[in-house]
Amino acid sequence: MSVTAAEGFVAEGLHAGIKRRRYDMALLATADGMPVRAAAVFTQNKFVAPPVVASRNRLQKNGGQAVAVIVNSGNANAGTGAAGMADAEAMCAATAEALGCDARDVLVCSTGIIGTPLPIEKILEATPKLAKKLSPKGARHAAMGILTTDSIPKEACVKGSKFTLGGMAKGCGMLAPNMATMLAFLTTDADIDQADMQRLLKDAVDRSFNTLNVDGATSTNDTVILLASGKRGKPDLAEFADALHRVCEELTLLMARDAEGMTKLVRLRVTGAKSDAEARQAAKTIAENNLVKCSWHGGDPYWGRLLAAAGSSGADMDTDLATVSYGGICVSRAGAPLEHDSEAVAEHMDGEEIDIEVALGAGSGEAQVIGVDLGPGYIKENSRTS
Amino acid sequence: MSVTAAEGFVAEGLHAGIKRRRYDMALLATADGMPVRAAAVFTQNKFVAPPVVASRNRLQKNGGQAVAVIVNSGNANAGTGAAGMADAEAMCAATAEALGCDARDVLVCSTGIIGTPLPIEKILEATPKLAKKLSPKGARHAAMGILTTDSIPKEACVKGSKFTLGGMAKGCGMLAPNMATMLAFLTTDADIDQADMQRLLKDAVDRSFNTLNVDGATSTNDTVILLASGKRGKPDLAEFADALHRVCEELTLLMARDAEGMTKLVRLRVTGAKSDAEARQAAKTIAENNLVKCSWHGGDPYWGRLLAAAGSSGADMDTDLATVSYGGICVSRAGAPLEHDSEAVAEHMDGEEIDIEVALGAGSGEAQVIGVDLGPGYIKENSRTS
Repeated sequence: MSVTAAEGFVAEGLHAGIKRRRYDMALLATADGMPVRAAAVFTQNKFVAPPVVASRNRLQKNGGQAVAVIVNSGNANAGTGAAGMADAEAMCAATAEALGCDARDVLVCSTGIIGTPLPIEKILEATPKLAKKLSPKGARHAAMGILTTDSIPKEACVKGSKFTLGGMAKGCGMLAPNMATMLAFLTTDADIDQADMQRLLKDAVDRSFNTLNVDGATSTNDTVILLASGKRGKPDLAEFADALHRVCEELTLLMARDAEGMTKLVRLRVTGAKSDAEARQAAKTIAENNLVKCSWHGGDPYWGRLLAAAGSSGADMDTDLATVSYGGICVSRAGAPLEHDSEAVAEHMDGEEIDIEVALGAGSGEAQVIGVDLGPGYIKENSRTS
Repeated sequence: MSVTAAEGFVAEGLHAGIKRRRYDMALLATADGMPVRAAAVFTQNKFVAPPVVASRNRLQKNGGQAVAVIVNSGNANAGTGAAGMADAEAMCAATAEALGCDARDVLVCSTGIIGTPLPIEKILEATPKLAKKLSPKGARHAAMGILTTDSIPKEACVKGSKFTLGGMAKGCGMLAPNMATMLAFLTTDADIDQADMQRLLKDAVDRSFNTLNVDGATSTNDTVILLASGKRGKPDLAEFADALHRVCEELTLLMARDAEGMTKLVRLRVTGAKSDAEARQAAKTIAENNLVKCSWHGGDPYWGRLLAAAGSSGADMDTDLATVSYGGICVSRAGAPLEHDSEAVAEHMDGEEIDIEVALGAGSGEAQVIGVDLGPGYIKENSRTS
């Protein structure tokens, strides 16, 4: 019931025929068809897909409100030019007509292959069917309808003292890259100012989805949307912020574990940086480095590669103080090997989740990213579109 | 005779026992044991290896001169701390003793695995043997002695109207990454000011080696050294600059074609950027993107990925004007597919060398990088050190 766990929301998913067999559309809406407050975070990519433009424009113009979000998977409606823009608008219009609301209050997301026209007729035909079947019980179907190469639906929910917050997600950054895009939809029955929603959502996204680094690319369609029905009154803001972060984090880990071809999930912490920003920079550079990712694939504690990657990141480091630890066991200090229990390290590296700390010795800045290994599965998935 | 093609230089290579069988040391020196002018470009990585520190310090202190360069392969002497620094100094001292010159005029380079102490005894034992065998005929042996995972020695030579310029190289950036590092050694008999040498070398490196992007990482040991004996007098500077660029470019292409696991070499040109710097930024981002690299491996003209990567680079682009061409055939315009001869594109993509132009439509800035595909061979090579 993730995305309909909070009071005031209904959802549904179905197979419209964009993909061969699997569900490929989802609709999330308010139960009463009235607008609620909405906040969103969109991709920073400049080659942005028409549905992102359509949704962003709406929230800018209507001050941050929405009745519904219509989503299709299997085709990202990206690299589709003016025709793609018209298709995104048509999806909003069809949804508004089915729900009896204003098309300016319908947000739209697409995810899937880039550069191929949307099969818009199939989508417009399926939209009224979706609207008719909307219910609080449709959350799982909706979570299935937004998936692309994901192997499982991704849902999470936190119950606060005076509110519920739930959500669903798919893919991640360029996690399942043939199908591009990370999408997440969150709902709550808390009553929050739109400005607070936007601020807290941005912060939660930065500390969760944005710490996940599968291959360093931001997609043309990445979108996170939060809707708040307000049915259960004002929450404690700190409690709400914490719940939002927890839901986003849970969805992030579900994505990471479902990354195409991945066999290892790595929690990489960079400490001792000159600033948190430099720590983030170093962590990102390390987690994106193909040599490092290959060494994770092989379960190889090749600390020299981590320091070499950190050294190329632009972040300050003091080679004489830098250390590298795997599973809490320090294997290198002062830029040289350190005596350590190599069997314990090997055992840790054999696991599915690896903890690494790279301490730069240049200050007290810290950051964490979640990375994955680079193995043959990734290449197999991504070397041909068809 | 590449590195000894110019008058006044001798070289030799041998097997010292660092690697199991292959040559693993090289020595390049002036024929008369007297110092000549030297210029160098070193890695920008902050986690820099002791031999780089030793060589950089020498050139800073002696105003840019050298009698010899001693090189070992199989071990990068990186991530080795104070002991590694002492080993680098010991290599210079042993070479100076064997040649009867000042140790401050001996440069040193190492390439190979990171984080393992140098087998310094073997190196010091082999150094006098190397010195004894030095001759103009030793160039090929020297070119073999600097290799790591390279499959062939890399040599190039240009004869100018009044000078000769030759060189040898190995690896590239993180091309053959278990062994890290790109090294190149160039010699000429032209008589050039040290300041001109340094300026022209930097420029040639920027336009050749630095345009090659295998996996985006700079190594702990990357070094390019140019020695000038001055035996044949002052050259035309423009002619010399051109020769220097040509030798560097030839060595760059030899490296690219020998990249571990690569099956496609891609000349990627970014045009229509707001500035050359933004073009370089976009080209680098595209060439490092794993999704793009996988599509090259599969010979898939998936132009959407190139634009998505460009869009995430930070470079300005006008989606309505941007185009993508494979082998001179434009396949996308205005962010949408364009009618084209898809058989001709498929044929071009099947070749070993692919030409791609991404035009951003934002100005007149241009840049070119040489990239390679990402295939299973790369992962196989890099998932275990041992």
